[in-house]
Amino acid sequence: MTDSLARSLACIDCGASYPLTYRLECERCRGLLELRYDLERRRTAGPAIFSGTGLWRYSPVLPISDPAHRVTLGEGGTPLLDCPRLAKELGVRRLLLKCDGPNPTGTVKDRSSATAIAAALQFGYRATSVVSSGNAGSSVAAYSARAGLRSLIFAYERASAPKLLHMAATTSDLIIYKGVYDDLISIWDRLVEEKLFFDCGASRNAYKQEGKKTLAYEIAEQTAFAPPDAVVTPVAVGETFIATARGFREMREAGWIAQVPLMVAAQATRANAISRAFREGAAITPLKIGYTVAEGLAAGNPGKKGDWVLRLLREGKGIAGDAEDDEILAAQRRLARAEGIWAGPTGVATLAVLIKLLGAKQLDPAQTICAIISETGLKTEAEPPSRQGTAFDDDSLRRLVTERLAK
Amino acid sequence: MTDSLARSLACIDCGASYPLTYRLECERCRGLLELRYDLERRRTAGPAIFSGTGLWRYSPVLPISDPAHRVTLGEGGTPLLDCPRLAKELGVRRLLLKCDGPNPTGTVKDRSSATAIAAALQFGYRATSVVSSGNAGSSVAAYSARAGLRSLIFAYERASAPKLLHMAATTSDLIIYKGVYDDLISIWDRLVEEKLFFDCGASRNAYKQEGKKTLAYEIAEQTAFAPPDAVVTPVAVGETFIATARGFREMREAGWIAQVPLMVAAQATRANAISRAFREGAAITPLKIGYTVAEGLAAGNPGKKGDWVLRLLREGKGIAGDAEDDEILAAQRRLARAEGIWAGPTGVATLAVLIKLLGAKQLDPAQTICAIISETGLKTEAEPPSRQGTAFDDDSLRRLVTERLAK
Repeated sequence: MTDSLARSLACIDCGASYPLTYRLECERCRGLLELRYDLERRRTAGPAIFSGTGLWRYSPVLPISDPAHRVTLGEGGTPLLDCPRLAKELGVRRLLLKCDGPNPTGTVKDRSSATAIAAALQFGYRATSVVSSGNAGSSVAAYSARAGLRSLIFAYERASAPKLLHMAATTSDLIIYKGVYDDLISIWDRLVEEKLFFDCGASRNAYKQEGKKTLAYEIAEQTAFAPPDAVVTPVAVGETFIATARGFREMREAGWIAQVPLMVAAQATRANAISRAFREGAAITPLKIGYTVAEGLAAGNPGKKGDWVLRLLREGKGIAGDAEDDEILAAQRRLARAEGIWAGPTGVATLAVLIKLLGAKQLDPAQTICAIISETGLKTEAEPPSRQGTAFDDDSLRRLVTERLAK
Repeated sequence: MTDSLARSLACIDCGASYPLTYRLECERCRGLLELRYDLERRRTAGPAIFSGTGLWRYSPVLPISDPAHRVTLGEGGTPLLDCPRLAKELGVRRLLLKCDGPNPTGTVKDRSSATAIAAALQFGYRATSVVSSGNAGSSVAAYSARAGLRSLIFAYERASAPKLLHMAATTSDLIIYKGVYDDLISIWDRLVEEKLFFDCGASRNAYKQEGKKTLAYEIAEQTAFAPPDAVVTPVAVGETFIATARGFREMREAGWIAQVPLMVAAQATRANAISRAFREGAAITPLKIGYTVAEGLAAGNPGKKGDWVLRLLREGKGIAGDAEDDEILAAQRRLARAEGIWAGPTGVATLAVLIKLLGAKQLDPAQTICAIISETGLKTEAEPPSRQGTAFDDDSLRRLVTERLAK
């Protein structure tokens, strides 16, 4: 019935162990839970335990036992692109971009939605819910529809038009919320306890977060298990960072890779609670935040996951940084022109932070650096160029082309 | 140096054969050219000649000899999704959707852009150009940037905002044109003769079209070489249709598949020159067309490729159909809600036509039918839902959720 090597849930704080049921926190200390796997079988079998394509290729290291529950829209298996032109511009020896835009709903969220909705099926739920700035909502709605589940999507009133259209098209119930993400999340997280729906939020659900671990497994396979020296991941509450770090750690424990890459946490300066605490060597102080173009990073209060990110950064000698909105938009333009990759502000914040950390000599340009580009540019809402068109005849067209190419 | 089995260009009308240079039409009769491959080596080697992932996995059956020219943004390898819920709604035994939205620029065009830009490099060009309703422009611009080439993109003034933003971000030269696609294409196609830039249009370039052949190879591999009974492909001038039909024909000639699927050409009713000619058993009469929501299908004069599509339909006993804008938009909504797949109007016109042909009993519901969904929904421009938000507290949130789930 199953090739999943998941064996238990364990508290990251007190170490208490639980069977593989739907449980969001430790009974003893309310700590966050993470999944534990049969390490020995993973070690002896090696990467040959993986077969097939896309996210479910990694089902042995994912917590869904029945293949019938493994909902898919074709997520995962995204490109890892070598970007020599941009690397040269930035003075980096080698730059790899893990482009998660080409996922079914255009973002990295599809990895966690796949395992979240699969877990909703596994635990017999008929409805899901999430509070979202846009990307998570689109993704959870799409996967819920695919699985035939009801979804209650709470969408931010300033979400971009492409994101809102996407959510409205795929969800059974779209609810627009007023106010900041952090405030609604606190209320919504309390309601989760009543188990009216399956938790598709980023705060606690270990089954949801687990899907993003496949980023690390893909990067490792795509580099023949010689992963980059550093991996820059986006951080809102920290799901992608924690999952990616875990994936690399699991592979090192299994002896598949020699070492875990330097993990770099990238935030928007306008929502930089974690990178600020890291810089100050302090605990996290929740921030009251406003709008940032990196909509998916707009969390001012990263909660317990934020503490976990900080712990991983400190234990693993990782680093953190943040970028201003104008730096993020500049990185977006630069990536599009240098390499033809069109990523959204949320997706390209990692690159903006990478550029800043190189400038501050906090990253070594003699290394291979990888950034996760978590979002397609197609969800970007901005003023399009003027639609003032020109009508052409043979002569005027030839003249225009000749003049342009002479420049 | 090469694993490409391409050997020559041949005229589809008079059969004249040419070496593998950059040539757009037959010297003798001005007929269109298609690529020819070493059939014998393909037959003896079998599908094991393919290795790697994505589009360039199929490099033996693509016309680019030097691996250094094989530009990539990670295109191809897109999901073929079994859609049992929608199949049941439509009363079809099995419905497969080949979803090309998860390509780097969100459309099937990335397949042809990859081989077009690779060919531009192969033949030493420094600039590319295309006249586009939006998708081809974004794609050619992105691949040109990736290859370090200049691109002159002629974009339709009514292209959606996400498409215009995408083109503006990735191209070196965006030119907005006034008037209909067909008129500019005629002028532009004459300018192509002067070889100021590499032809990235859909009218003639065999190297460009060839990339789309990989759709057929992927569908065959994804069904273990037992392809669907029918494949519905979108038709503007016919590039995707011709290339997909060719791919299946090549595999049948090599003995890899037992038979070529029934090929179904899907058009927008507002630009139905080919399906109309097919229905009337006549030659194509170019149409003066206006706007259709299926922007990528807005070609009223499909030129010589249109004649080729018609010939393939008649020789291969294929069928053609078209769908009205409101039917296309209904199919878009239906697909999103039933399966969580968010495709644009251009991408979902095939599904709308499939639904009509089933209704008219022109497709057999006892068969396995595949539709190519050629475009992501993220490029859709429409009025988003009201952004009028609600502020929640614990009680009002619980009340809303409870009420919604009780419905």
